[in-house]
Amino acid sequence: MNYRIEKDTMGPIEVPDSALWGAQTQRSIQNFPIGTERFKMPRAIIRALGILKKAAALANAELGELPRDKAELIVRAADEVIAGKLDEHFPLVVFQTGSGTQSNMNANEVIANRAIQLAGGVLGSKDPIHPNDDVNRGQSSNDTFPTAMHIAVVEELHRQLYPNVKKLRDTLAAKAEAYKDVVKVGRTHLQDATPITLGQEIGSWVAQIDYGLEQVRHAEQGLYELAIGGTAVGTGLNAHPQFGDLCAAYIAKETGFPFVSAKNKFAALAAHDALVTTSAALRTLAGALFKMANDVRWLASGPRNGIGELLIPENEPGSSIMPGKVNPTQSEAMTMVCVQVFGNDTAVAFAGSQGNFQLNVYKPVMVYNVLTSIQLLGDACSAFNDHCAVGIEPNLPRIKENLEKNLMLVTALNRHIGYDKAAQIAKKAHKEGTSLKEAALALGYLTEEEFDRWVNPLEMTRPSAQT
Amino acid sequence: MNYRIEKDTMGPIEVPDSALWGAQTQRSIQNFPIGTERFKMPRAIIRALGILKKAAALANAELGELPRDKAELIVRAADEVIAGKLDEHFPLVVFQTGSGTQSNMNANEVIANRAIQLAGGVLGSKDPIHPNDDVNRGQSSNDTFPTAMHIAVVEELHRQLYPNVKKLRDTLAAKAEAYKDVVKVGRTHLQDATPITLGQEIGSWVAQIDYGLEQVRHAEQGLYELAIGGTAVGTGLNAHPQFGDLCAAYIAKETGFPFVSAKNKFAALAAHDALVTTSAALRTLAGALFKMANDVRWLASGPRNGIGELLIPENEPGSSIMPGKVNPTQSEAMTMVCVQVFGNDTAVAFAGSQGNFQLNVYKPVMVYNVLTSIQLLGDACSAFNDHCAVGIEPNLPRIKENLEKNLMLVTALNRHIGYDKAAQIAKKAHKEGTSLKEAALALGYLTEEEFDRWVNPLEMTRPSAQT
Amino acid sequence: MNYRIEKDTMGPIEVPDSALWGAQTQRSIQNFPIGTERFKMPRAIIRALGILKKAAALANAELGELPRDKAELIVRAADEVIAGKLDEHFPLVVFQTGSGTQSNMNANEVIANRAIQLAGGVLGSKDPIHPNDDVNRGQSSNDTFPTAMHIAVVEELHRQLYPNVKKLRDTLAAKAEAYKDVVKVGRTHLQDATPITLGQEIGSWVAQIDYGLEQVRHAEQGLYELAIGGTAVGTGLNAHPQFGDLCAAYIAKETGFPFVSAKNKFAALAAHDALVTTSAALRTLAGALFKMANDVRWLASGPRNGIGELLIPENEPGSSIMPGKVNPTQSEAMTMVCVQVFGNDTAVAFAGSQGNFQLNVYKPVMVYNVLTSIQLLGDACSAFNDHCAVGIEPNLPRIKENLEKNLMLVTALNRHIGYDKAAQIAKKAHKEGTSLKEAALALGYLTEEEFDRWVNPLEMTRPSAQT
Amino acid sequence: MNYRIEKDTMGPIEVPDSALWGAQTQRSIQNFPIGTERFKMPRAIIRALGILKKAAALANAELGELPRDKAELIVRAADEVIAGKLDEHFPLVVFQTGSGTQSNMNANEVIANRAIQLAGGVLGSKDPIHPNDDVNRGQSSNDTFPTAMHIAVVEELHRQLYPNVKKLRDTLAAKAEAYKDVVKVGRTHLQDATPITLGQEIGSWVAQIDYGLEQVRHAEQGLYELAIGGTAVGTGLNAHPQFGDLCAAYIAKETGFPFVSAKNKFAALAAHDALVTTSAALRTLAGALFKMANDVRWLASGPRNGIGELLIPENEPGSSIMPGKVNPTQSEAMTMVCVQVFGNDTAVAFAGSQGNFQLNVYKPVMVYNVLTSIQLLGDACSAFNDHCAVGIEPNLPRIKENLEKNLMLVTALNRHIGYDKAAQIAKKAHKEGTSLKEAALALGYLTEEEFDRWVNPLEMTRPSAQT
Repeated sequence: MNYRIEKDTMGPIEVPDSALWGAQTQRSIQNFPIGTERFKMPRAIIRALGILKKAAALANAELGELPRDKAELIVRAADEVIAGKLDEHFPLVVFQTGSGTQSNMNANEVIANRAIQLAGGVLGSKDPIHPNDDVNRGQSSNDTFPTAMHIAVVEELHRQLYPNVKKLRDTLAAKAEAYKDVVKVGRTHLQDATPITLGQEIGSWVAQIDYGLEQVRHAEQGLYELAIGGTAVGTGLNAHPQFGDLCAAYIAKETGFPFVSAKNKFAALAAHDALVTTSAALRTLAGALFKMANDVRWLASGPRNGIGELLIPENEPGSSIMPGKVNPTQSEAMTMVCVQVFGNDTAVAFAGSQGNFQLNVYKPVMVYNVLTSIQLLGDACSAFNDHCAVGIEPNLPRIKENLEKNLMLVTALNRHIGYDKAAQIAKKAHKEGTSLKEAALALGYLTEEEFDRWVNPLEMTRPSAQT
Repeated sequence: MNYRIEKDTMGPIEVPDSALWGAQTQRSIQNFPIGTERFKMPRAIIRALGILKKAAALANAELGELPRDKAELIVRAADEVIAGKLDEHFPLVVFQTGSGTQSNMNANEVIANRAIQLAGGVLGSKDPIHPNDDVNRGQSSNDTFPTAMHIAVVEELHRQLYPNVKKLRDTLAAKAEAYKDVVKVGRTHLQDATPITLGQEIGSWVAQIDYGLEQVRHAEQGLYELAIGGTAVGTGLNAHPQFGDLCAAYIAKETGFPFVSAKNKFAALAAHDALVTTSAALRTLAGALFKMANDVRWLASGPRNGIGELLIPENEPGSSIMPGKVNPTQSEAMTMVCVQVFGNDTAVAFAGSQGNFQLNVYKPVMVYNVLTSIQLLGDACSAFNDHCAVGIEPNLPRIKENLEKNLMLVTALNRHIGYDKAAQIAKKAHKEGTSLKEAALALGYLTEEEFDRWVNPLEMTRPSAQT
Repeated sequence: MNYRIEKDTMGPIEVPDSALWGAQTQRSIQNFPIGTERFKMPRAIIRALGILKKAAALANAELGELPRDKAELIVRAADEVIAGKLDEHFPLVVFQTGSGTQSNMNANEVIANRAIQLAGGVLGSKDPIHPNDDVNRGQSSNDTFPTAMHIAVVEELHRQLYPNVKKLRDTLAAKAEAYKDVVKVGRTHLQDATPITLGQEIGSWVAQIDYGLEQVRHAEQGLYELAIGGTAVGTGLNAHPQFGDLCAAYIAKETGFPFVSAKNKFAALAAHDALVTTSAALRTLAGALFKMANDVRWLASGPRNGIGELLIPENEPGSSIMPGKVNPTQSEAMTMVCVQVFGNDTAVAFAGSQGNFQLNVYKPVMVYNVLTSIQLLGDACSAFNDHCAVGIEPNLPRIKENLEKNLMLVTALNRHIGYDKAAQIAKKAHKEGTSLKEAALALGYLTEEEFDRWVNPLEMTRPSAQT
Repeated sequence: MNYRIEKDTMGPIEVPDSALWGAQTQRSIQNFPIGTERFKMPRAIIRALGILKKAAALANAELGELPRDKAELIVRAADEVIAGKLDEHFPLVVFQTGSGTQSNMNANEVIANRAIQLAGGVLGSKDPIHPNDDVNRGQSSNDTFPTAMHIAVVEELHRQLYPNVKKLRDTLAAKAEAYKDVVKVGRTHLQDATPITLGQEIGSWVAQIDYGLEQVRHAEQGLYELAIGGTAVGTGLNAHPQFGDLCAAYIAKETGFPFVSAKNKFAALAAHDALVTTSAALRTLAGALFKMANDVRWLASGPRNGIGELLIPENEPGSSIMPGKVNPTQSEAMTMVCVQVFGNDTAVAFAGSQGNFQLNVYKPVMVYNVLTSIQLLGDACSAFNDHCAVGIEPNLPRIKENLEKNLMLVTALNRHIGYDKAAQIAKKAHKEGTSLKEAALALGYLTEEEFDRWVNPLEMTRPSAQT
């Protein structure tokens, strides 16, 4: 491989000729060979840095801080970063400096060198574009990297999370509607309880998912506030006083999201509480999906010796030894994703608490975990939807059989004969293995006609018809 | 001790004569001797059950489901529960049945027996008030206990959390204002950075606390939705169709908070995601307080060999062996509280994910941990405020000495001589142990007059004055 | 209330006349009103401090560092602390200074004052016994409190955890033996799988509990190393060089456990990794109990519409609205305890990572959480044993019925006709709702005699008989 | 791309012609597009499956369960899997079925097809080697995948973790020895405390790392027990009774580690507590590294306005805006890795608790997180060692200056003049900004000669010389 010499304030260093990055990126490659295969700085962050650098160049130009021609070169190079054309020039990993400085410099260096290329200059010459003085103008890693974190997370929420969760949510809502009249046994404490419709049961999953989504959307509000304009410690030193607002406006324009400059830029560097909140909201959503996926697999358990009230798609052989076995594998993938999201959240919240003075130096690991949770939840909802939810169907004979055996139908009698006598009926039927009606009549607490009128499973699921 | 016989559907059981509770409470005492000393069901839950039972009686009476005279007896007894007069009759612990049934029955039994007392009846006779048929009318543990959870948490947020956090927040905000012109060294990566004012530094703590509080207040919105009206599985079986709405309205009236009946009562029984969200918001707030308390103790570290820029109250001898030692003990208590809140949150989120079908049976442990976090954060903020924050003062000589030595003042030169030359100056001064000005002049990059004009720490903290 | 004046290096302060504590305890009461009701410093720590102070006095006397008569007075007072006679004089909470200094001083002050009383002196006079110079001689809070932490945890493991877990484990082991020939359906992925005996199923719970206990016992080894002798920073300043070893020997004698002075006392003050390991081991044990309790409630689910293969004791009415309902409440209490242990562990591990330099200042919150986990797991195992495990019985008719329907018995045919043909049989039976034998014969892959010989559920649970 | 048809019990499916995998792998690709880029099943698991399949073939051949020629073909193909030559044929991700069945089948299919290739057969023909009947003979995913989990983790501990942690540990131990006579200020509660040597300070990091490593090595013992031989539910159905033991012996031979067949195979399928224990031990180790890395960066903080007692290598420019700034980036990467390990551990422990009946279906996500923690800790220790630890040096002038100012040297006077008078001296010096000696003499509590004899910092770090 051929090398050229790049320089930074530490001195010269060899960089592969084919690389657009410069000295600081090269040092990071050499100093941080940690988790290299799996922990590359996410593409969403690279893209966000491109968006930011473009916006910064435009803002600086508008404010007279950067010549128009330099700004144009930077914008052209940044557009390529945004589009993903220069991804191979972003080799760094998450476990680097905790401010993300090296990834910010990676962006500065690649954009500077690419701009130099476009201008016909010499790579590494910093002429006509200097990575610090021009591309990073009015910026510090301490405000650019958290700005990129917010941009990346907002974009990925909209790209990966919302549509996939929505798809699953809508499928379930349609199922809830379709099965709104299928009356079945309810279960509390895993024990038979009063009846419910399958639509109500599925609808409660939808309600939980909706609530979870709402929390994520609320957390997203906090992400619109960008650190940009704070530079090194929040004071905005070396940035034009209007730079933060203007840069945020350009970012809003580029992305279509209502980003603004943060009200308190000191806190925007020293803490990432909006990310912690986002992570927590993703955890709440994961909790909802966990419960749904568990309900699905328990309701589909069997085929003969479980609950067996739901039928789910048979997607693959379930066992390498048990012939013909089919397993609820989409539920398993989903619940594994959920525990991963719980783990990611632990890392985010822990990291979020560890800021000191003007900086939290856990930035890359925080955004990495949030982006991972977004991707995994999005992917899992999509797979679960396509390969399980769309095919969920009630096992009507089993549902009917179970419902008829259900002793908790006795609850409907409370209003007529009181809790204590109703309990006697249920206990008698349970002990003797008879039907409720048989026990009720044997005890003489009501007539057969009364029993049939009062114990009506469908009515028991419709409170409005009770009085 | 003398005993009387109480009965439930399991049969008779001896209960202490002095106790107002009944058979089911007694069974729970005997079956769940777990964590007895420390894990009693919190007073806030007992009070909330009182509020709920009162509201239920009023609603049932209004709907014609309960005779007025019975309702009045229940209300009188419930008022005593609300006021805390019957606390000794609530002996149960958190680790009982996961639906909180036994605490619901404890409330039903105590209120019934107290009402019977008021009516001159015989304890345990269930006449004229039956714990299930009257006190629990139109209710199930499955909707009453989560209703009580929400009432308790909302009340405690307002009683214990908000005022105490607000008190600390206001003290800090006043300090930020008072020291807005104290220029000091900023620190990023624990290393000297460009200057900041002490007001800005403290202000960033305020901004974090404000954000944390805002998250808790957002989470509180979700708590206004009450499960009441769902009864056993969410369908509202055995409750009057208007019972949920009316009962919630009475609860709102009693508490002054805008409680309503939950939109989806199935989810309100099967999951407690609003509690999970509340717990997460408390964790975010704890993260903010953790960072603040850490900053305080580091800035006050020394007295001679630390940073020493802040002076904090000396409240007690710090060491049993080192005479004259004073330690940042309020920061230590605060950060210990914060890790406890993180731990509590782990329990809440884990528990929240474990619902099955129509019920989550981790109700008591969830609300216990949320209430504990509220109490601890409130107490710790109050103590930290009274015994530390109010007494925080800048150590002005130390701040001035540190600021003058700070090599990162060089950053102001970027705009004038570029990043690379500025770096040369800082490195030279660092290596040779000289002042920045000496190094700058020696390198000949600017004149003394320029240095003095450009390198102005106070100006460096005021972005609006930069151009 | 009457007061007397006590003094410390901060000056005089009023203390209730009836109290044996002194100035520093009084300051802590006033400065740390945090979690007052529930977070009192555990009795086990108070007792451990008594043990330590007694041992220290004996060691100092033996080394000539303390006059014999002073040592005897201290021992007499410390014996009362050990016995619990002075518990009311230990009013402090967990959330105080992070070194536990105030509780160490509480012990020093109470023992000094009690010794003064025994000697007929004047409370608060520090004559003839001085809390620092005599009771705390050769010690610092930094080594005494972690020493007390280890003593307390080891004692409570033996008092609260091991016997209760062992009791449950033995009950389950007896059940495993009793039901070793009850063949039933196995379940993987919640789906019917090849047969297993109930003894094997219960035995796997025992194996998990045994493994968990073994981890706790391994962690206990690390707790035998005591910080005592390290004094303020680990160097042992102001302690006689043999003090640590000798004091540990006296502690070992007093407690009966093989405590020794820690190899590296610097680490013993600066970190509490043996506690982190203990907490993790308790978490592993909790994970095992969680799985067991879940299996129990699922296997007992029903009574009619669940799995219903186990019968568990009916301890209390399960529902305030559903008459006759019985719930697996002991499993619920147990699993709630387990999530609390997970939460406690989060706090412990987080706190354990936060040491700085020569001290970790999260000592009280760490030991509090470990002790809480020990108590809760012990209590829950005892309650679960007494009120559930001892009464577990197989529901033989249901087990038999389920087993006979089980399609996965087909697995036994793999060896004879291959996986693919066996799968055809299972799928055909599943689709057509027939028995395996009917499907097998219909497909013509084997004779009825072969089927009966090869498909033998009991044999399928006994690998040694297979060939 | 060209396709061929592969079949399983679900029917035919198109597979890329170039792929060695079969129908079930193909279905998994299509059904589980989750986290595709970052969550591929780790190479260590693929290799472990290769080792297992080889050992199984040899064991089956020896037991007469598989013809020798078939076994030889399987061994040849498995050897290629072990060597990593067929990695491209293992395309599956972690988030699949929770038993890892699809990765087990991926191994079965690739080995079968590769063996068929070696035998000159037709891909997908299952002739002469059938993926289930031959490669998977006597096995189930339920015992093979957990077996592979244990093999992979043990191998990676030895390959990635131990050598790298050891390297760092040895560097630190050498530093501790090198600086054993550098006396410096100790710090407790972040406040100046009695002196310590730098060797003692660094030595405490070594002691913590050693303890952490010891916990990992203890946990490793539990990993030697392999599930193999348990097949579907733990009974060993369809495996030769000696298969488990013999297969484990072949695995031990292949890997050089003392693997054996698990004592309780039911638990080995239904739970992965040895992995939970390993994860917890990695967390303890991470806690130790976290503390060490924090101490390093705080001790190196400054360069002028922090503690500044350590000098660490300057590896890269620290700031994109602050020229000449150098940051403790290796500490930052290390602490970020540690929070990731905490997060991974949360996922592992949560997943470990969620088993039901005969199977825990969180196998892939558990082993993924443990392997990730191993890799990250190993990489981070290596980077920290090479780029930070080896270059740590004391800043002797600063250390001396700090030590001389240290008021806590007064502690040495306790033994001579008592705690209370010593406190007066320290407080007077603190208040008046004088030296301790000045204050001591002014108070008249001792002579200058006594002060110089008693207050000797070096002696204060050597307990054996005290009396």
